[in-house]
Amino acid sequence: MTEHELLSRLRALPLHRGARGLADDAAVVAGLVVTCDTLAEGVHFLPEDPAGDVAWKLVAVNLSDLAAKGARPEGVVLSYPLSGGAWDAAFLTGLGEVLDAHGCCLIGGDTVALPLGSPRVLTVTALGSDAAAPARSGAREGDALWVTGTIGDAGAGLAIARGVSGPADLLVRYRRPTPRLSEGRALGPVVRAMMDVSDGLLLDASRMAAASGLALAIDLAAVPLSPAYRAWGGDPLAAATAGDDYELLFALPDGVRPPVAATRIGAFVAGAGLNLHQGGAPVPLPERLGYLHART
Amino acid sequence: MTEHELLSRLRALPLHRGARGLADDAAVVAGLVVTCDTLAEGVHFLPEDPAGDVAWKLVAVNLSDLAAKGARPEGVVLSYPLSGGAWDAAFLTGLGEVLDAHGCCLIGGDTVALPLGSPRVLTVTALGSDAAAPARSGAREGDALWVTGTIGDAGAGLAIARGVSGPADLLVRYRRPTPRLSEGRALGPVVRAMMDVSDGLLLDASRMAAASGLALAIDLAAVPLSPAYRAWGGDPLAAATAGDDYELLFALPDGVRPPVAATRIGAFVAGAGLNLHQGGAPVPLPERLGYLHART
Repeated sequence: MTEHELLSRLRALPLHRGARGLADDAAVVAGLVVTCDTLAEGVHFLPEDPAGDVAWKLVAVNLSDLAAKGARPEGVVLSYPLSGGAWDAAFLTGLGEVLDAHGCCLIGGDTVALPLGSPRVLTVTALGSDAAAPARSGAREGDALWVTGTIGDAGAGLAIARGVSGPADLLVRYRRPTPRLSEGRALGPVVRAMMDVSDGLLLDASRMAAASGLALAIDLAAVPLSPAYRAWGGDPLAAATAGDDYELLFALPDGVRPPVAATRIGAFVAGAGLNLHQGGAPVPLPERLGYLHART
Repeated sequence: MTEHELLSRLRALPLHRGARGLADDAAVVAGLVVTCDTLAEGVHFLPEDPAGDVAWKLVAVNLSDLAAKGARPEGVVLSYPLSGGAWDAAFLTGLGEVLDAHGCCLIGGDTVALPLGSPRVLTVTALGSDAAAPARSGAREGDALWVTGTIGDAGAGLAIARGVSGPADLLVRYRRPTPRLSEGRALGPVVRAMMDVSDGLLLDASRMAAASGLALAIDLAAVPLSPAYRAWGGDPLAAATAGDDYELLFALPDGVRPPVAATRIGAFVAGAGLNLHQGGAPVPLPERLGYLHART
């Protein structure tokens, strides 16, 4: 069974009215935004990755989904595989750091002892409140596509984590992403559609377009790149397909300025699919728009 | 780091005001009851256990925690390790069955591809509403201890799953436990304390007494045993220490009758600890009051 088939089968089960057909990054239950992300050792992180960074990332990727719904974090529920060693202590330190950094807290969870030698599997369910909860499917023809922050830093950071030389600040962008919570809160009530960029700008943007029943034109020349990424030698196409950015991608009516710092990178048009250009000159689509699961 | 040390470290983190000090089976967030349980292959279930039964148990043990808070299930959030084979299809069938059986639904979740050969790790976070949400710590001196249903059937079922001969209905009690949702809803508003019996009647009852700052006297002769369990040759002490019952254990003021079928098995008294007797004659405490983690 593929993930696609699994999703089809899951969608045939009784779904909560707030489950959004399992097609969004989060559900809304009794006014709370609910999202869940699992990180597995050997898939989403490496055995040698610092445990504190794994804790940070586990919570941050969930808070990023809350940010994309414009929610305030209520707290996180943690399923944790106790290993009995120094990894646990370092994980807890990182967990405290990421909770403190985002004014978040622990709600509860479960602790399990996995069989000896099993890869760690860690799950967080995050709950958020006071959310405008925009879907990813609300973009309309003529809307502009915007993105917060800079794209590609985390992709460079992943390369650096794997041994390519590069500056520590790019590595930090990969290991300790910043969920855009305050930006999400400001954007939530005004955007037509919003999601976070986790699997690659082009891939996630094409998902927003597909969910909205539209085509999308993206100007590669407009994709915001950091000075550190440019100095490292990164190019816009690599940035737009790398993933792990955890920036916010959103649709606004043409002419409307967002209430937070952001860059306009494209426009929704009638049709289906993704068109790429660089300052007007067509650019062929890369074979891979981003990363699917089973990474690192 | 032991689980006890982990819990101490987790309690030192910022906790949600509804987290109940991580000392209850569930938290209460914005009026929703939140609980989380993980099942790991080789720990909580065997690789040869039917996938549909694993799905059933995964959801049922979470719904049992909602029952213990007197909550109505809103739905479940599932973290699922996709394996690509027949196991997935059988799991989904069982998932549909347990959701249908309890009027529950799917809220969302995450799917991961674990490294090849990894034991499956499955996590559910369940949300419930309209809960009286009694704690396990509310029993008072003189209160009576009650339990729903019969105890020990699942323990016999585990022995049968491991190859001991016995009837299928005991095996079903182990593999497909019934969360006592309607009983929990009726009991929630009237009990002083409530929890579910998951790790063993004596162990869970002693936890309720400790949380309430009291001692507890339990009459082994009163522990309700099913005809099937008696016919199989099970004894009361084995039943009271076996676990996996998923019955409701609750405290009521002396003289108050519960609104559901249940059996009075003991009384809370001043002091600390657990006293066991059989129709008045003292019974020495067994070495193990129930099962801790890492079972099967």
